[in-house]
Parts: sequence; structure tokens; C-alpha cells
Amino acid sequence: MLKPGATIGILGGGQLGRMLAQAAARLGLNCHVFSSEANACSAQVVPRFTRAEFSDHAALEKFAQDCDVITYEFENVPAESASFLAARKPVLPDPAVLATTQDRLIEKSFVANLGIPTAPFAGVATAAELAAAVAKIGLPAVLKTRRLGYDGKGQMTIRPGDSPEKAWSELRQAPCILEGFVPFERELSVVVARTRDGAVECFEVTENEHRNHILHRSKVPAAAPAAVADEARRIAERIAGAFEYVGVLAVELFLVRDGIGHQVLVNEIAPRVHNSGHWTLDGASISQFEQHIRGIAGWPLGKPVRHGRVEMTNLIGPEVETYPQWLSVPGATVVLYGKGEARPGRKMGHVTRVFRDE
Amino acid sequence: MLKPGATIGILGGGQLGRMLAQAAARLGLNCHVFSSEANACSAQVVPRFTRAEFSDHAALEKFAQDCDVITYEFENVPAESASFLAARKPVLPDPAVLATTQDRLIEKSFVANLGIPTAPFAGVATAAELAAAVAKIGLPAVLKTRRLGYDGKGQMTIRPGDSPEKAWSELRQAPCILEGFVPFERELSVVVARTRDGAVECFEVTENEHRNHILHRSKVPAAAPAAVADEARRIAERIAGAFEYVGVLAVELFLVRDGIGHQVLVNEIAPRVHNSGHWTLDGASISQFEQHIRGIAGWPLGKPVRHGRVEMTNLIGPEVETYPQWLSVPGATVVLYGKGEARPGRKMGHVTRVFRDE
Repeated sequence: MLKPGATIGILGGGQLGRMLAQAAARLGLNCHVFSSEANACSAQVVPRFTRAEFSDHAALEKFAQDCDVITYEFENVPAESASFLAARKPVLPDPAVLATTQDRLIEKSFVANLGIPTAPFAGVATAAELAAAVAKIGLPAVLKTRRLGYDGKGQMTIRPGDSPEKAWSELRQAPCILEGFVPFERELSVVVARTRDGAVECFEVTENEHRNHILHRSKVPAAAPAAVADEARRIAERIAGAFEYVGVLAVELFLVRDGIGHQVLVNEIAPRVHNSGHWTLDGASISQFEQHIRGIAGWPLGKPVRHGRVEMTNLIGPEVETYPQWLSVPGATVVLYGKGEARPGRKMGHVTRVFRDE
Repeated sequence: MLKPGATIGILGGGQLGRMLAQAAARLGLNCHVFSSEANACSAQVVPRFTRAEFSDHAALEKFAQDCDVITYEFENVPAESASFLAARKPVLPDPAVLATTQDRLIEKSFVANLGIPTAPFAGVATAAELAAAVAKIGLPAVLKTRRLGYDGKGQMTIRPGDSPEKAWSELRQAPCILEGFVPFERELSVVVARTRDGAVECFEVTENEHRNHILHRSKVPAAAPAAVADEARRIAERIAGAFEYVGVLAVELFLVRDGIGHQVLVNEIAPRVHNSGHWTLDGASISQFEQHIRGIAGWPLGKPVRHGRVEMTNLIGPEVETYPQWLSVPGATVVLYGKGEARPGRKMGHVTRVFRDE
């Protein structure tokens, strides 16, 4: 168990790291942020900040010396950097998780091998594999690069009549995964926390609405049958267990009709705190950020109590200018990430509304 | 209205400043802490920290240049330093408030002049005045230094048969105020926020239990008749209005029997966020810290919604060692202040428990 006053290293300088550092500070733990960005928004809330590239071994060495445990706020930390650090200090969750989740094909195979339902999928490395994948899965389908996609970047929907080859060339013929198009009713997610000794605590299932492939709004409780919500939580726990995961992990799922009932399919795993868990910051007694910090610090997990019905709305790009109108809404909380320019698509902040008596 | 990215200066380096800075950061506002302490616990959560004495004009000058608005986290900022700064940048609340609240006799007179009930009181500057005060007020009574007392420091209870002269000499014959002993049923407090344009928002009345003159526990709602609680809030609003106050102010009151009913007497004013308002951090949709930041930043105040029945317990000195036992209690939140040594009487952290369904 890390003692108050200990230092947690955070790889990455964005808003997730910022909120992790803020949660750590509430527990008397200090954070050291490592990021290549000059204006990393998490640097404003921590006592120590290293600006360097992940390839800079001297900087990583010095950073490791200062930290008692190291974590990350985004999943694209280079595997080489993570293992360099792991040879020096505990890196949690284990960098082996990154190797799985950084590659959509390996990730989907991992989930499927656990017997957990996903959309049908197939790997695409050659034109022949592309044709075979389309034949196997049918259209419509979604072609996604195996690596480095997020918020809808690096993916193309292929509809009946479209040219799969053209879609693939739009993605620069990068190694891809073709996924069957899922006619989902809703998008759900589960944020689960796990400790080194296997204790697990799930937040309630969240219902997510995307706009332009970017999360727009999350609602809790989700409009999903109780049995399906339970199944979603069990799935998240099973994935966390299979990884022997430490910290917070998010699982994105599709809620689909299954005959007269419903079922869930896993869409994606994020080995970190997740935008769809931001409602926990002001909507529950313990946030996903604090759970992650507790998990990696070897502290017991909290038992979150939700404050009421909750809606979290992202403020994306110029939407951030609307924050003043939320300030006087009873039960609303505004969180801004301290970023400069409100570029389109950039996550600038969010608003949480708690409806206590619902 | 300060824009996100603006800088708020905070005079003082303790936990109140730390929690103010954390609240500011959630709104995208940066803080610059000014403190003479090397290990100021608020320095860990801000981008800029000046370690200097309040008498250091060069340091104050540089600090003022960096800040858009300046506030304080404790009331004993020297008036001279506050006015030096106020000549350069807005200092809120107005330093004139400090001149009143730094002196118990001026403070009590100010309250009494507003027609608000207090304990009977009299100034003591000479032995003759001490005798006259005892004759007027009777015993038991409490002799307090006019300046610099807190958490029970700088005060002596004089019981019938005690020597008032001896009590006064224990206080080094400092200028004092003698206050009639109030046989209160409960201690209450109200945290009120006010904006430059006179908008006011009160938190609910809090019931406080002290141990060894230090706040031990706060409870909301307070066990006080509704009419008396309303009166307490009206009093706090009247005081804030009389000061043309900007930011958060706390009023401590005694609940006393008054014939068959009850009334409240004002005990003390704190021109800052207050320990008895810590419950708002995890027990309501907006905290006292955020309300203060909003007030001094010229932002609209929030409409706090309480999450349920709330109890806040201070972790004083070695009590902080008990924090692990709170970590797994459903609905409990632990906040630690990042201080080093757990000296007796030192405020190290607090625990908030929310009972949602009560």
C-alpha cells in the first residue's frame, strides 16, 4: 500500500491524466506527469512534470527514479517505453495488457477466446484477405485499422455496393480488421476496477450516445434490462480477471435484440479510465479516477454510491463556450480541462447533472 | 468574469487553499499560492508557488503581476500586505473585511450593530475594564484575545470564584474581549456565498461538534427547528450584505433555548471557506470551495443540491492513521491534505459520509 506522500507517475498529459492526478491529490498522493506536449493540461495540477518523448530513455530513467508506481492515461504508450519503465518500477496495469488492446484484431480475438460475444470479425492484411473477410462477414461492415484508431478515426463503413478495396486504400492499406455491422439498440459501457489481489468493483452500466463518433452523452442508469446489465458487468469483470488487471478498465458494448430478448456484444476495451465513466466524478461517492488510483496504489477499492439519476454531457470543441449556461442549473457541475484552443472535436470539458430524487 | 486559464492568487498555504486550488482547477482556472511555509500543502496542486514572507514587497509585487485576482485562505493576512496587493490587483473579499474579523471586539460590535444577537460582550484593555466587564457580564464568562486566536487558542474560561486577573495574565494581558458564557444546546454554522452584484447562495445550516475546541464532526441537516435554521441563514446573508462581501463567508452560531422556543446567537465570522463547510465537497453538487472561486472570479454561483444526509468527520493529528478503515465504507469519501507530520491538533484530512436515502 503506497503511503500518502508517495509519487505516482502518469504517462500522457491529457484530461484523463489531469483527473487522475486530481483524484490522487485528494488522497494525499502526488503525481508526476510525463508527456511530450508543451501545454499538457495535466501539468497544471501536479507538482512535477517531465516534457519528453517516450523514446527518450534518459528522461524515462529519471522519471522512473522519482515514481513509486507508474500508470498511463492513454493506451498508445509505446510497448518499448512501457517495458523500459517496468524494468525499473511497477507499471500498472501491466504493459502486457497494452499489447492486446493496442491491436483491435488481437483484442477482439482475446475477447472471443474468453467465450464473450462480439461482432463477427476477420483480419485483413492482403487484398485476398479483404475479399475473404467480406465474403465471410457480409456487408454492411466496418473496416478499422488494427492500431491507433480512436473517436472514429481510422475506420470506414462499407455498405452493400461500396468497393471494399477503395475503403481499404482510404485507410492506406494498413493492417485492418473487418467487423460485421451491428444493428445495436444502444451503446453501453462498464467501468470496472480491480486490485492486485483480485478484488473487483464495477460501476453501474452506462448508456452512451455518440455524435460524429465522439461520445456526446452518458446516462445512468442505462435503459437496459437488468439481466443484460448484470451480464455486461460480469463480462467486464471476466475481462479484468483474464488480464489479471490492476486499476480501472472500461468495456464498450452494444445492446442488441436477440429474438424476443436482448444481449450484449463487446465492441472495445480501454485499459484506462474512460470518458463514459466521467459521470462518476460528480455523480457517485467515488469516481473512476479515484478507483484507478486506489487500485494501482494498493489501496482497497471504494464502494461507490450513486447520488441519483445522472447525465454527463461532453463539451466538445466550441461547445465549451456554452459552459456559463450550466453554472446556475441546480445539481449541475461543470468541469473544464484547462486546455487552450477549442479545436473541433477536442474534448474541452464536461457537465454532470444529478437528479437526486429519480 | 475571469476566463478559463486565468490565474487566481491564494494567500496562505494550508488545506483550505489546497481545496480552493483544486476547485479552481476543475473550472480550468489556475492558482498561484503565496506562503511562507516551505512545505505548504497547497503547493502540490498548483502550477505556481511563491515562498516568501507577507512583508516581502518584492515577492508580493511579482505575485500580483502574475495574478488576475487574489484571495486568501486564512484571515490573519496582515492588513498592510493585503492593501499593498489591493493597490495592484483585485483582492477579494475586500481587505476591509479583515480589519473587522481580525479583531473579535470589532467583529462582535459590527454584528451587534446590525441588530443581530450575540453573547453579551465587553472590551478589556485595562485592569479596570476587566473588573467592569466582569461586573457587567457576570461569570462564567470567556476571556479571549482580540486578535489571532483560533481552535481554542488565546482564550480562557473564567468560572465563578476564578480570578479574572489571573486569566488575563495567562493571556499576557493582551487586549481582550470578555464574552458571556452561552449555555448553548448546539453549535451551528452557515456558509454563504455572495457575488459582486449581490447574488447570494447559502448552504444548508450545519451542526458542529467540537472536541478540545477543534471541530470534530459536522452534520447536515442540523438538528435545529426550521424557523431557527432559516433565521441563521438570513443572518449570514445579512452579514455578507453588510460587508458587500465577495466570495464565501462562514458564520458560527450558538443555538440556545429562548423560553419555550429557540434562538441563535452569532459567535464568530470567518471571512473564508470554513472547516464546517467541508461536507459540501462530497456531500453536495457544488462545494464551498467552488462557490468561493466562482464568487471571486465573477462567475454565477451554483445552486447546491445535497446528496443525502451528510456527516463530515475531521482527521486530527494521529487520527489520520485511521483513514484505511474508511476506504471501504459505502458512500464514504476520504480526503487527505498532503501534510507531513501528524502533530497533535493538526488537521490532516477528513471523511465525508453520505446517506443517500435519508
